[in-house]
Amino acid sequence: MNQTPAIRHALSTKREDDFAQWYQEVISEAEMAEESGVRGCMVIKPWGYGIWERIQRLMDDRIKAAGVQNCYFPLFIPLSYFAKEAEHVEGFAKEMAVVTHHRLIGDGKGGLVPDPEAKLEEPLIVRPTSETVIGQAMARWVQSWRDLPLMVNQWANVVRWEMRTRMFLRTSEFLWQEGHTAHADRDDAMVETLRALEMYRDFAESQLAMPVIAGEKPENERFPGAVATYSIEAMMQDGKALQAGTSHYLGTGFAQAADITYQDREGTQQFAHTTSWGTSTRMIGGLVMTHGDDDGLRVPPAVAPHQVVILPMLRDNAEDEALLAYCEDLRKALAGVSALGEPVRVLLDKRPGKATQKRWAWVKKGVPLVLEIGGRDAAGGQVSMLRRDRLWNAAAKANFVGMGRDDFVARAAAEIEDIQASLFAEAKAKRDANIAKAASFDEVAAFFAEDKRYPGWVEVEWARPTGDELEGIVQKLKALKLTMRNTPLGGEPATGGCIFTGRPAVERIYVARSY
Amino acid sequence: MNQTPAIRHALSTKREDDFAQWYQEVISEAEMAEESGVRGCMVIKPWGYGIWERIQRLMDDRIKAAGVQNCYFPLFIPLSYFAKEAEHVEGFAKEMAVVTHHRLIGDGKGGLVPDPEAKLEEPLIVRPTSETVIGQAMARWVQSWRDLPLMVNQWANVVRWEMRTRMFLRTSEFLWQEGHTAHADRDDAMVETLRALEMYRDFAESQLAMPVIAGEKPENERFPGAVATYSIEAMMQDGKALQAGTSHYLGTGFAQAADITYQDREGTQQFAHTTSWGTSTRMIGGLVMTHGDDDGLRVPPAVAPHQVVILPMLRDNAEDEALLAYCEDLRKALAGVSALGEPVRVLLDKRPGKATQKRWAWVKKGVPLVLEIGGRDAAGGQVSMLRRDRLWNAAAKANFVGMGRDDFVARAAAEIEDIQASLFAEAKAKRDANIAKAASFDEVAAFFAEDKRYPGWVEVEWARPTGDELEGIVQKLKALKLTMRNTPLGGEPATGGCIFTGRPAVERIYVARSY
Repeated sequence: MNQTPAIRHALSTKREDDFAQWYQEVISEAEMAEESGVRGCMVIKPWGYGIWERIQRLMDDRIKAAGVQNCYFPLFIPLSYFAKEAEHVEGFAKEMAVVTHHRLIGDGKGGLVPDPEAKLEEPLIVRPTSETVIGQAMARWVQSWRDLPLMVNQWANVVRWEMRTRMFLRTSEFLWQEGHTAHADRDDAMVETLRALEMYRDFAESQLAMPVIAGEKPENERFPGAVATYSIEAMMQDGKALQAGTSHYLGTGFAQAADITYQDREGTQQFAHTTSWGTSTRMIGGLVMTHGDDDGLRVPPAVAPHQVVILPMLRDNAEDEALLAYCEDLRKALAGVSALGEPVRVLLDKRPGKATQKRWAWVKKGVPLVLEIGGRDAAGGQVSMLRRDRLWNAAAKANFVGMGRDDFVARAAAEIEDIQASLFAEAKAKRDANIAKAASFDEVAAFFAEDKRYPGWVEVEWARPTGDELEGIVQKLKALKLTMRNTPLGGEPATGGCIFTGRPAVERIYVARSY
Repeated sequence: MNQTPAIRHALSTKREDDFAQWYQEVISEAEMAEESGVRGCMVIKPWGYGIWERIQRLMDDRIKAAGVQNCYFPLFIPLSYFAKEAEHVEGFAKEMAVVTHHRLIGDGKGGLVPDPEAKLEEPLIVRPTSETVIGQAMARWVQSWRDLPLMVNQWANVVRWEMRTRMFLRTSEFLWQEGHTAHADRDDAMVETLRALEMYRDFAESQLAMPVIAGEKPENERFPGAVATYSIEAMMQDGKALQAGTSHYLGTGFAQAADITYQDREGTQQFAHTTSWGTSTRMIGGLVMTHGDDDGLRVPPAVAPHQVVILPMLRDNAEDEALLAYCEDLRKALAGVSALGEPVRVLLDKRPGKATQKRWAWVKKGVPLVLEIGGRDAAGGQVSMLRRDRLWNAAAKANFVGMGRDDFVARAAAEIEDIQASLFAEAKAKRDANIAKAASFDEVAAFFAEDKRYPGWVEVEWARPTGDELEGIVQKLKALKLTMRNTPLGGEPATGGCIFTGRPAVERIYVARSY
């Protein structure tokens, strides 16, 4: 009888054993990022930063195509800007990096201290987000209805002091894009708010291959000062929700604080309606927890720095030259192929070292396709292909598929596009299988009972209560470590009663544990 | 008799009347940047940021082609990292933004103050440059000779507290790239130092169309802690020098401070030799002062966000539709043309407004080619082309050249490439005409005499003195507001005596006023 051998995975921790530990191990073994030695800040290493550069490029193309213009605004925000927006301060201003001095001097003991003579008259805050400072600019730039809509975006670093950090998911400093727009009226601002949300949804699903629910956050989860906050929510493989992007309709509140006014067609002064929307390096954490497996990361081809790695099995002998020439020729042929609308990104890895070790390093990094080429392959015009999304065959061996070199070049684009589609389908099937409906709070509690720690999400119907009544529900959920995620746009209408209040429900909302 | 009418320029200040005022006016009228309201920080507006995005894209391609990998390192650097490098502190640590608190609280009077309970145990410095924090990472990453060379780069914001700021040239916060590399020995590190310098020289000349001298800075101008500092120096139209990029060979000093050691092939522990090199948004200031004229900016096509702007002369009547269709067809045809190795970047400016006003707005922004298309042009298959580098004809009229639409499409790439080449040739001729030789200190002083305020640079021969003798020369030059810029690489050998010491000269060096 044939027995399937046990698969020895490339990581020492499996997802099912310790998801948090597994996550750290993927990031470390894929050489994506590491602790910097500076509290709350990470070093993003080439493979992690390469994925971020891909995300930037693809998102930036979408942002520009929408007519939004990139700008750059100051890192520092004067303290008084925050005080202007009391509600904003209440939600945001607590944990922020405060610059109080502009000079260092020797302390007379061989060390350095902030110079007491160089204390700033007004402290500066390292931006946690830029609504306030961009609002000041908008107030200068907007005079007439002809200046609207005004749509800007910046790629920047922001700082929110975090006590407990986790790489990519929650760091004191992180990288993001923040779009800020001003409009003549509510309708136009809402169109933009939802355009940004849809841009994020499509980017997440088409390019990160990460299925998401686009919807509106409940009142208690709104961005401070926002009239409405929308998000995309993704389900991680431990069943928790990750908010992977947000879009806010800010009404006229920020315009009133910053005095963004315009003269309308009738000559009347009006406050502009503003929006803001952002995504960050947090998406990379979402990518890891959506597509990673017990062998490391799997990067969707659209955001992979290299989509194909060619590994020549060098032997330090006279045949290496012909082998390398064959591989270089293959590299050139693949670079001339277009997949997912762009030239294939292919690397010929000529570094010294054992091919097997190098193969597993690329497996852990999650490069979509590895081609191992030995001397016999080169002589026979063959390649040996390993698809990262289907790493093991039925006999639990590395799933190499041999084929003619020209066959491979001809099907490379199809393979790459199939990996992109397969990763999405796999993640979507997993997500959909882990969403249940609950018709009562008891059913919610049972769903998240101790013995099935992270079962997924539940969809419930509710009456959308506000104020103290809402706060009571939030606390009741919090006791079970649960939060309400969002109400899907275009979702089915509610048909029954609110599971919290018993009143007729008005909409559906997802309840989950979350990052 | 024909009389040439006086040209009425698009700016109110001419370069020859007040160069500093002219510079501010170009930046303001071209809508490149503006004061932010935050001390020392500017807002970079879409046109200025678009130029920066082009610079980033082109420089990043060169950096990646050299095998350097992009990473991201923390914004904050613990105070103790600076104290480790005494020499580094001496030069740099004086004016820096110091974070001392991580929380704000209400002051009981409706305002906010740093929370005294949230004082950091160790202050954090907002990075003025990242040698220290990247050195810590390199110490972790480098173990063996096999790990070398290690070559990383980051695109980031940095902060150096500046009392007197000038947009793009000197701001407290600015954007840059900083490359950092570690090598096994001096020779390999020097090859990289000079590779980066040559990358900057070629980028400046080929893409910014800005002629530069690549050379070594004198000892007194070295980066603190560097063994050798190299720069590219450009001459602005007021004759002053602008240092537009630097590359440093750091010896083993930084490796010793950060403990970057490796085991060599013989098993001995060795300190790595490191380099660093950077260019910043300052280059945009150089671009303005190299190519700007009394009508505003002229952007070299390689870094222009739009190379061609099509301006339909809309009349709000029924003919507009056919005119717009003609222009859109032209836009598509041009977008399919390749110039300077990339698809032509063309904008069809359909915004409402008078075509003449819009024309002058694009002239001030410096877009290389403007095409004005009226109804008759559309009907007759014509275009009317304005080259920004040759704005006025002999009769001092806007220099429109009419031609058939297909003729223009056929010659568009040649026009764009000719503008790129012409801007460089014009700047180089101006630069070369303003470099003189001086055989004595008196000749230097005479060259920079009061009545010809900014005549250019002088080339002198010197003995390269050091220590107190050098310091005396630096002070003597400083009294005339002069500095030594650099000793050109590959320049002619010295033949005479040192103009400062009278001893035999060993090399030539440029002396100039500078930014």
